[in-house]
Amino acid sequence: MDISQILEAVKNQTITPQEAEKQLKYLPYEELGYAKLDAHRKIRQGFPEVVFCSGKKDEYLIEIFRHLYKENGEVLGTRATKTQYECLKAALGGDAEGGKPNLEYDEESHILKIEKEKEHIGKIVVCTAGTADIPVAKEAMQTAYYFGANVEEVYDVGVSGLHRLLGNVDRLQDANCVVAVAGMEGALASVVGGLVSCPVIAVPTSVGYGASMHGLSALLTMINSCANGISVVNIDNGYGAGYIAAQINRQSSVSR
Amino acid sequence: MDISQILEAVKNQTITPQEAEKQLKYLPYEELGYAKLDAHRKIRQGFPEVVFCSGKKDEYLIEIFRHLYKENGEVLGTRATKTQYECLKAALGGDAEGGKPNLEYDEESHILKIEKEKEHIGKIVVCTAGTADIPVAKEAMQTAYYFGANVEEVYDVGVSGLHRLLGNVDRLQDANCVVAVAGMEGALASVVGGLVSCPVIAVPTSVGYGASMHGLSALLTMINSCANGISVVNIDNGYGAGYIAAQINRQSSVSR
Amino acid sequence: MDISQILEAVKNQTITPQEAEKQLKYLPYEELGYAKLDAHRKIRQGFPEVVFCSGKKDEYLIEIFRHLYKENGEVLGTRATKTQYECLKAALGGDAEGGKPNLEYDEESHILKIEKEKEHIGKIVVCTAGTADIPVAKEAMQTAYYFGANVEEVYDVGVSGLHRLLGNVDRLQDANCVVAVAGMEGALASVVGGLVSCPVIAVPTSVGYGASMHGLSALLTMINSCANGISVVNIDNGYGAGYIAAQINRQSSVSR
Amino acid sequence: MDISQILEAVKNQTITPQEAEKQLKYLPYEELGYAKLDAHRKIRQGFPEVVFCSGKKDEYLIEIFRHLYKENGEVLGTRATKTQYECLKAALGGDAEGGKPNLEYDEESHILKIEKEKEHIGKIVVCTAGTADIPVAKEAMQTAYYFGANVEEVYDVGVSGLHRLLGNVDRLQDANCVVAVAGMEGALASVVGGLVSCPVIAVPTSVGYGASMHGLSALLTMINSCANGISVVNIDNGYGAGYIAAQINRQSSVSR
Amino acid sequence: MDISQILEAVKNQTITPQEAEKQLKYLPYEELGYAKLDAHRKIRQGFPEVVFCSGKKDEYLIEIFRHLYKENGEVLGTRATKTQYECLKAALGGDAEGGKPNLEYDEESHILKIEKEKEHIGKIVVCTAGTADIPVAKEAMQTAYYFGANVEEVYDVGVSGLHRLLGNVDRLQDANCVVAVAGMEGALASVVGGLVSCPVIAVPTSVGYGASMHGLSALLTMINSCANGISVVNIDNGYGAGYIAAQINRQSSVSR
Amino acid sequence: MDISQILEAVKNQTITPQEAEKQLKYLPYEELGYAKLDAHRKIRQGFPEVVFCSGKKDEYLIEIFRHLYKENGEVLGTRATKTQYECLKAALGGDAEGGKPNLEYDEESHILKIEKEKEHIGKIVVCTAGTADIPVAKEAMQTAYYFGANVEEVYDVGVSGLHRLLGNVDRLQDANCVVAVAGMEGALASVVGGLVSCPVIAVPTSVGYGASMHGLSALLTMINSCANGISVVNIDNGYGAGYIAAQINRQSSVSR
Amino acid sequence: MDISQILEAVKNQTITPQEAEKQLKYLPYEELGYAKLDAHRKIRQGFPEVVFCSGKKDEYLIEIFRHLYKENGEVLGTRATKTQYECLKAALGGDAEGGKPNLEYDEESHILKIEKEKEHIGKIVVCTAGTADIPVAKEAMQTAYYFGANVEEVYDVGVSGLHRLLGNVDRLQDANCVVAVAGMEGALASVVGGLVSCPVIAVPTSVGYGASMHGLSALLTMINSCANGISVVNIDNGYGAGYIAAQINRQSSVSR
Amino acid sequence: MDISQILEAVKNQTITPQEAEKQLKYLPYEELGYAKLDAHRKIRQGFPEVVFCSGKKDEYLIEIFRHLYKENGEVLGTRATKTQYECLKAALGGDAEGGKPNLEYDEESHILKIEKEKEHIGKIVVCTAGTADIPVAKEAMQTAYYFGANVEEVYDVGVSGLHRLLGNVDRLQDANCVVAVAGMEGALASVVGGLVSCPVIAVPTSVGYGASMHGLSALLTMINSCANGISVVNIDNGYGAGYIAAQINRQSSVSR
Repeated sequence: MDISQILEAVKNQTITPQEAEKQLKYLPYEELGYAKLDAHRKIRQGFPEVVFCSGKKDEYLIEIFRHLYKENGEVLGTRATKTQYECLKAALGGDAEGGKPNLEYDEESHILKIEKEKEHIGKIVVCTAGTADIPVAKEAMQTAYYFGANVEEVYDVGVSGLHRLLGNVDRLQDANCVVAVAGMEGALASVVGGLVSCPVIAVPTSVGYGASMHGLSALLTMINSCANGISVVNIDNGYGAGYIAAQINRQSSVSR
Repeated sequence: MDISQILEAVKNQTITPQEAEKQLKYLPYEELGYAKLDAHRKIRQGFPEVVFCSGKKDEYLIEIFRHLYKENGEVLGTRATKTQYECLKAALGGDAEGGKPNLEYDEESHILKIEKEKEHIGKIVVCTAGTADIPVAKEAMQTAYYFGANVEEVYDVGVSGLHRLLGNVDRLQDANCVVAVAGMEGALASVVGGLVSCPVIAVPTSVGYGASMHGLSALLTMINSCANGISVVNIDNGYGAGYIAAQINRQSSVSR
Repeated sequence: MDISQILEAVKNQTITPQEAEKQLKYLPYEELGYAKLDAHRKIRQGFPEVVFCSGKKDEYLIEIFRHLYKENGEVLGTRATKTQYECLKAALGGDAEGGKPNLEYDEESHILKIEKEKEHIGKIVVCTAGTADIPVAKEAMQTAYYFGANVEEVYDVGVSGLHRLLGNVDRLQDANCVVAVAGMEGALASVVGGLVSCPVIAVPTSVGYGASMHGLSALLTMINSCANGISVVNIDNGYGAGYIAAQINRQSSVSR
Repeated sequence: MDISQILEAVKNQTITPQEAEKQLKYLPYEELGYAKLDAHRKIRQGFPEVVFCSGKKDEYLIEIFRHLYKENGEVLGTRATKTQYECLKAALGGDAEGGKPNLEYDEESHILKIEKEKEHIGKIVVCTAGTADIPVAKEAMQTAYYFGANVEEVYDVGVSGLHRLLGNVDRLQDANCVVAVAGMEGALASVVGGLVSCPVIAVPTSVGYGASMHGLSALLTMINSCANGISVVNIDNGYGAGYIAAQINRQSSVSR
Repeated sequence: MDISQILEAVKNQTITPQEAEKQLKYLPYEELGYAKLDAHRKIRQGFPEVVFCSGKKDEYLIEIFRHLYKENGEVLGTRATKTQYECLKAALGGDAEGGKPNLEYDEESHILKIEKEKEHIGKIVVCTAGTADIPVAKEAMQTAYYFGANVEEVYDVGVSGLHRLLGNVDRLQDANCVVAVAGMEGALASVVGGLVSCPVIAVPTSVGYGASMHGLSALLTMINSCANGISVVNIDNGYGAGYIAAQINRQSSVSR
Repeated sequence: MDISQILEAVKNQTITPQEAEKQLKYLPYEELGYAKLDAHRKIRQGFPEVVFCSGKKDEYLIEIFRHLYKENGEVLGTRATKTQYECLKAALGGDAEGGKPNLEYDEESHILKIEKEKEHIGKIVVCTAGTADIPVAKEAMQTAYYFGANVEEVYDVGVSGLHRLLGNVDRLQDANCVVAVAGMEGALASVVGGLVSCPVIAVPTSVGYGASMHGLSALLTMINSCANGISVVNIDNGYGAGYIAAQINRQSSVSR
Repeated sequence: MDISQILEAVKNQTITPQEAEKQLKYLPYEELGYAKLDAHRKIRQGFPEVVFCSGKKDEYLIEIFRHLYKENGEVLGTRATKTQYECLKAALGGDAEGGKPNLEYDEESHILKIEKEKEHIGKIVVCTAGTADIPVAKEAMQTAYYFGANVEEVYDVGVSGLHRLLGNVDRLQDANCVVAVAGMEGALASVVGGLVSCPVIAVPTSVGYGASMHGLSALLTMINSCANGISVVNIDNGYGAGYIAAQINRQSSVSR
Repeated sequence: MDISQILEAVKNQTITPQEAEKQLKYLPYEELGYAKLDAHRKIRQGFPEVVFCSGKKDEYLIEIFRHLYKENGEVLGTRATKTQYECLKAALGGDAEGGKPNLEYDEESHILKIEKEKEHIGKIVVCTAGTADIPVAKEAMQTAYYFGANVEEVYDVGVSGLHRLLGNVDRLQDANCVVAVAGMEGALASVVGGLVSCPVIAVPTSVGYGASMHGLSALLTMINSCANGISVVNIDNGYGAGYIAAQINRQSSVSR
């Protein structure tokens, strides 16, 4: 029951004001004790809750995956270890009709997921400055794909060899959103920002050494960008960038 | 002539290879000596070049405004002083037919502009945590409006009095993009991010004192946000946020 | 009407569900356009809203003071300039019965207030390391006093001349809360923390030079304190410390 | 003998001035060579000394636990490893009458303790933004409980899914003190601060990655909070927060 | 009366235990309300209290100078403005016998003092990297001289023209202490440290620009020095260095 | 074909404008999917591409070495592990005529290379402050040597024992470029900068502890150098310094 | 007399060993008391001493200019104010034969100089990202020109409009050294570094706001550059970059 | 031969000027290739060279110990591992007369030494805030003792239990130098500085967690100390503090 249904029910005296008060206070979430699963999120935000696997105990992870799978028919987990994958695989038994859910793990991006068939729309480009930035890019790519976007990958186009980027500009120019992933000095975002008309989500990575300060330098570069249309997410946050790109792509692909 | 036209002309021997080579090297920009106006930008990026007025000499500003006005029929300037406005106003004479261009200055946002009539589409919401954040919000609002978006303002809805924000949630929920402007601890972005389904552009402001470190704390808060859909621009960069919001709004409002 | 009254009214069909829905969404605040006064705060938090005067336009300040004075019969403003005081003084006219409200300004703490007679309870001690820390201490003192606490001041008892502090220990030991204000290396908080049984609110100040980094060093010292019972507020945030001290004092003075 | 007893004894010539001088200089502590146990602390501060186990040699730890147990009948140790627990368990033999002291270890909070039966008073709430913050919260909870407070736990109520927090507000609103534990951007403290009337002790955690800088970002967020009644302790310092909460709870529960 | 005299008096019943207790608690300091002058310092530390003039109100400064002059026959003030000097000069009247105290002000070091005739012993060398560091060096020099040391000045011997330093090495090598003052990269301290056998007090200065970060870079350089015998004081803290140099010089000049 | 050849071919109708357009867009690089080898670099920059081995997968490394070896007859790899060396050694088979390429690995500098015979010209000096800086210096030395420079090594000449440096000054003074490698306080660069007439490339190292902050302090020292002719590369970036030194040496050794 | 002449003279007993010892110790510098002019520098480093005017007292400045002018027939001063120029102009009288020295002041770069006719050799390019970086670029340009280089200026070629830079690449590619001046995110250096074969001296500027932290962000970007051949000087240090560029240009233009 | 002997020899024509020139350039150090042992240091600085063992290769360490032992009859090594001790012990064979040198290793301070019998003079006190600071204190103690000082240890006297420090004040007050070792907030130095008349060398330690930032917070506290007579060395630099304390103690104990 949503708020207007509740109030109608009070008016009709189907429920007491006291019961109504209780229901009004609690928007739906599932209480697991150590966690409160946000069952309401899909309605509120358009995408269901995602599991940040890093450091979660096995029993918690299993329970959370089961709940979310039951709720949505698919689950996306980020920053999962191979061990978590194996543990989860063993735990998720099949049922009479449909067999085991199809749990997949990608070692490069550390994405662990059960994914429904779905139509993919629009176009996102994920590009990196170097090869060392690829794992973060893959996390962005996988996330955006899971949330229904077509994704194209353009890797190793850092600004020190500009022709590699320039030779791929047309692939970038018809995207609804570009995710630019770069460590070290992070200059890729600014250059890409000057070449495309869609928003650019900049992802600094912890690739580098010395004064890169684990990605802080790249983050500062991107935040200070002189180019238009660039906004920034946390260091190594491929997931966050993929999410936003999917939001923008969804809004750009459907007439509203 | 674009690149294929140039090459056709070479083939037809209308121009020599030497002339062609020259033209191929130089994409269009207007050389003013101290500046190179990016006449190509409107084609490449969809929005024409904007003038960062802060610290520009008067004679430069006048010349740049004249060129851009002639090129596009409108000009947007950011971070302008009142003195610059007055100087520019005196300098921009009218012509035989149309009279003086309509130069406008907004003291709060420091936006200085000549604006064409245009249709405004979609919807962006700009919200602030406190009243001290309003000048930055106004810069975002003015920018997005100039670039063709409808903009709604929701001010003073900081998280310490949550009901003020909750009472305005429905105004946020049907936007194509929300710009969340906050100084001090900058928590507004995370809370807004959890309540809407569209992308949130977070703008940290330099409002605060002590450990706010001129906005660095708010920037870090926003970059570390646990909510989905949040990306961040530089401290006090209302312009940047307004630009991205307008990009997203444009893509979201027109079926592609 | 509170939530249960609203729901009773729906049940009794005094109001429609639609009206109820509207009222439920909006907890009380007064919309001034540029600001949303939190009329609800006194009920929710026990102390009414306070005005951070710094940088507020005169017309805003006058309007806000009028509203809050009307609401609560008293107003506390922090970080006010003398000019704001004079402007406000001129603006706040008297009425038929009671004459002008008694606006007071303290140049040292920059507190600007209209204060009701009230009973003061319990005991707070505000102490400083040096004389340069006194303005911040006065802000804490004035705030705590405004919110109903008895406050004792113990100034210039920094750790480099320990006997000055030790000679005043008994004045500290029967307080409900001690506010320890110190700049430079900020060691006072740790020493005080080891000598008293009540909570110590540590306020780093921007007093110092060089590596004090405008109070950041003192803040770090206090956050890292090896003594028990110390928690920290922002640099120069006398108001915040006074507020918390008043909360603790109030809870400690009234049996619950 | 306290100072007045000593002076009486001098007057009565029970002791010589020379002996008195010696005694006056030395407040009671137990000299273990490598450590000086603060036997006086319980009198001076109301709670006995607590053992920071991390990195302490086994023989030291055993000796310190023995002394403190003998002195107070109970001991609280923080940041203990499982190995330390096992070593201590083996070492602490029983005696003729009472058997071994009841040594308990909690793996999540790393609390190692021997605890006396005691009455618990008042109410503290410990809440966290996410599940990864729970170990720090447990340290706070265990500490406050050891020092005699009733403690209620409210976990995984981070601001990105606000309804989870709002659904638990009434549990927070009747506490004497709320401990708000959060990593990443640490926004929980500000939101809680705006919803309750008691003091909020904010504990930043090192949960996060990239620009969270091991908790520094959350610390800055909390220090800059725009909400009233918030003071901050060190990153991951659950113990410190639990101690202060217990102080405030004790003062609030007993009429003074 | 010192502690043994007090206790004798109690024994002899010249004073009551109650009076003794009071006296024992309060080591001597003069209470000025806003300040507590540390009259005991000369006995405890060998040098009387010094006045940090910066930001002190005129009436406070006058009163403090009067008290300290009366106590010690001389006063040293640091970081004084010319205005403070003039105000103090006007205020300090002469008396029947001796006329006005001889107040002196040095514009370069901002030292304001009344100085007794005294014998100067030993030898300190104060050296600087550049001419811009001289004001800080002068503060060190004046302080050390006031506290009884002979001081030699060796300026503009920065490491980029090493022969200027090498040509003065013998002047440094027979000092009891060298004060090395340098901004920018602050390398002087390390080079001096390798050339002399006495302790070197390193004073970073805020001279520089850009990444010098107001002296922080020089401070870090000095703290990380690979040379032996170097310890560091705060940025621009010539006074502190002069004080320590005078301590070391005093101890080195008098057989103990 | 270069651009003028392409345009001639269009004019002569040897190729169509469409083919020309394609070729003009893509400057030569070899697409490996995960990497884009910059085959053009040797022409554009005078030195062929170098392989940053750290973290590269074995199969990638082998493929990249094969391509670059085929292209240039030699390959330079930096930051290689011994395992990578062994893997590569096993993989690079010989051919009919020339046998296996001569793969060499230097454990100190972590340089992994196949090097052609070549003439070495000019002179570079690489010097270090301490012995712990030698691995970084070796990386610089090896790089510069690979790119054709004569290199002389002068180690352990830190400023705390100045005579060690002064005794080697004449070896430095006839170099075309000096690479100064130093950790801790990094003062070597300034002193060397004052003694030679050629450019000095300063390399901060992560040697040190505490406030050296993994080389950041040395970096700041070098950036703030008061000596002329000093420019700085990243912490531990021996490769970068060796490259620049080789550039300068090449330009200085060949009349242009 | 140089060292071998001195030793010959000792052998020939023209001077005593004692006199020789004295002379050997003191390399030539002129002692002005507050400064030690490095008369030896031209011989040691190839360029005479330059005056950092900022903050120098007028009388010092006049005396230093006179000495250096007499010594070298020309003087270069950096960071001079217009007032210093006027004061110096008034002070430098003419002499019988040649009239006043030709003192010139450039308001943009704050260079104050007396310059001899000289031949200019080679070629340096100074380029900037934006127009706001021009003053720093001018300082570099003026310095390099003073030290005998031909200098070409290429301004406003920041990476957000890449075609402006690409249209000028050939002007950069035949330089002996490129000075790349950029504030904000400072990405220009990396892009230029990938396009030219000569060394690039990167100059971060304090242009920007918010997280640019007065140039620190640009400095970090440049230090972390992924391109080869880039070394970095201090923020706004146009002089330093110009000096190094002139060194490299000199070495590159003269066969050695 | 020293410089005057060399010059006499030239005069007497015992050596040629050319030979003299060579000798004058090289002050004595022993060239080991990878290191240059500073044989001159004992004369120049009064204490012989000390070996920083951390990270040194075994063969280097053995060779360096042999040289220094032969030179001075004793050697002090810091930051040695137990493995290095064992390796060195095996390597250092005895000779005909005297047997093996007596190599000692202290696991707590990581000091590895061969020590001659010597007289110890004066008095230094090394004190710590906590027990975790003891290893750093031991390094200071061992160093000062090796260099001939009597050393007294006063541990676990942190400021949160002030009576532990006050009960030991008289042990501190007759020292020639106090070394104050503290991590976390590092307040001990300020309190000690206010209680003694001799110089205090403050050593920040990396003890702590969270915002202690590995000792940086304690370093800042100590650098900003409001007490007189405090200078600071690097984090965990017990050796450095012990060295300076020994210098001051030596100067203070011998009449000069």
